[in-house]
Amino acid sequence: MDEVKVIEIKKSIFADNDKDADALRRELKQKGVYLLNVMSSPGSGKTTTLIRTINLLKDKLRIAVMEADIDSDVDAVKIRQATGIPSIQLHTGGMCHLDAEMTRQGLDNVPMDGVDLVILENVGNLVCPAEFDTGSCCNAMILSVPEGDDKPLKYPLMFSVCNVVVINKMDVLPYFDFDLGRCREHIALRNPKAQVIPICAKTGEGVEAFADWLLQEVNNWKK
Amino acid sequence: MDEVKVIEIKKSIFADNDKDADALRRELKQKGVYLLNVMSSPGSGKTTTLIRTINLLKDKLRIAVMEADIDSDVDAVKIRQATGIPSIQLHTGGMCHLDAEMTRQGLDNVPMDGVDLVILENVGNLVCPAEFDTGSCCNAMILSVPEGDDKPLKYPLMFSVCNVVVINKMDVLPYFDFDLGRCREHIALRNPKAQVIPICAKTGEGVEAFADWLLQEVNNWKK
Repeated sequence: MDEVKVIEIKKSIFADNDKDADALRRELKQKGVYLLNVMSSPGSGKTTTLIRTINLLKDKLRIAVMEADIDSDVDAVKIRQATGIPSIQLHTGGMCHLDAEMTRQGLDNVPMDGVDLVILENVGNLVCPAEFDTGSCCNAMILSVPEGDDKPLKYPLMFSVCNVVVINKMDVLPYFDFDLGRCREHIALRNPKAQVIPICAKTGEGVEAFADWLLQEVNNWKK
Repeated sequence: MDEVKVIEIKKSIFADNDKDADALRRELKQKGVYLLNVMSSPGSGKTTTLIRTINLLKDKLRIAVMEADIDSDVDAVKIRQATGIPSIQLHTGGMCHLDAEMTRQGLDNVPMDGVDLVILENVGNLVCPAEFDTGSCCNAMILSVPEGDDKPLKYPLMFSVCNVVVINKMDVLPYFDFDLGRCREHIALRNPKAQVIPICAKTGEGVEAFADWLLQEVNNWKK
């Protein structure tokens, strides 16, 4: 029951990733499947956030998850156990990001029948994943309070390519020098259109706002 | 006074980084300069840890710092203001790591006269920097409590290449599901010889143990 499918992702052979990503997006549009690419630092709470979000949406949408990781299978097992939805593990073989072709290799192994939403949990890294369009319909990133409100200044590309920034671990705000207003300003410098949604994945606080936003996105995509 | 030297690092032209790194290490040995490469996730507290450590050691050693960052100069300014020691900023131009040639470009801009210890703060990233030998005498990594004790399972290479793992933000242990014993076990799986030093850079607790360890390393290198 706890066994998850593990896909060893091969290095991409496509020279033009942007073209390939656009082609993948068109295919997804035709199939009515919404692909969400979730990026963050290691340890920002991607998996916990996804579990909470999926549990809020799984009665409204058919969801599948692809967990990209360099080596371990911890996250795919966790997602499946906590939500009951199909989850596969993508092993990147040491690679620090996914591109569109690597994402496609993953999607080929997802049971896509009737699926509305596929969530891709990218490798934990604020640098390289931002450079490669995965073909997703939307980029989300999770920034956690302990990482600091200066991250948009230091990792500009990541914040530029994200449509939504989820600020996680809001419960520990009193213990860190993190100012939500200042963080919003720093994000706006990089990307004035980015949605900013503060949550606490541990307690569930605020996750509904993210789930509602995502549900609307998926419904708009399928129109 | 607050202006720091900013070096735009060029992409390396050397095909064999390992060879180049070994050559750099030999040169450093001849000059009696110890190069410490510090790696971590974004937001784990590298800069604060370095400031504390430098302030404990600056009367015993002549120290210089190279701060690698994709874009900003925040850290080099912070280090100089808080410690008074020479600090330069290396801009990687979007690159996710430093290799030996890039490190050498930085060192060429450090005032090396009489310097005992050069600290390189690598790009905040648990994946790519682990793949490139910078030519340093020692690799240190900082893992912070909020990131979780499972990180050695998920980023195996990073923990394999590190001689010392500093566990930072020990003050917030009560608010996170982080078990120090379990973390030590996970680190030992990847690297049984790694030193593990728990600290709190914010309060300074435990930093002396890291500074003592580093002082001994530098003295051994100069013998």
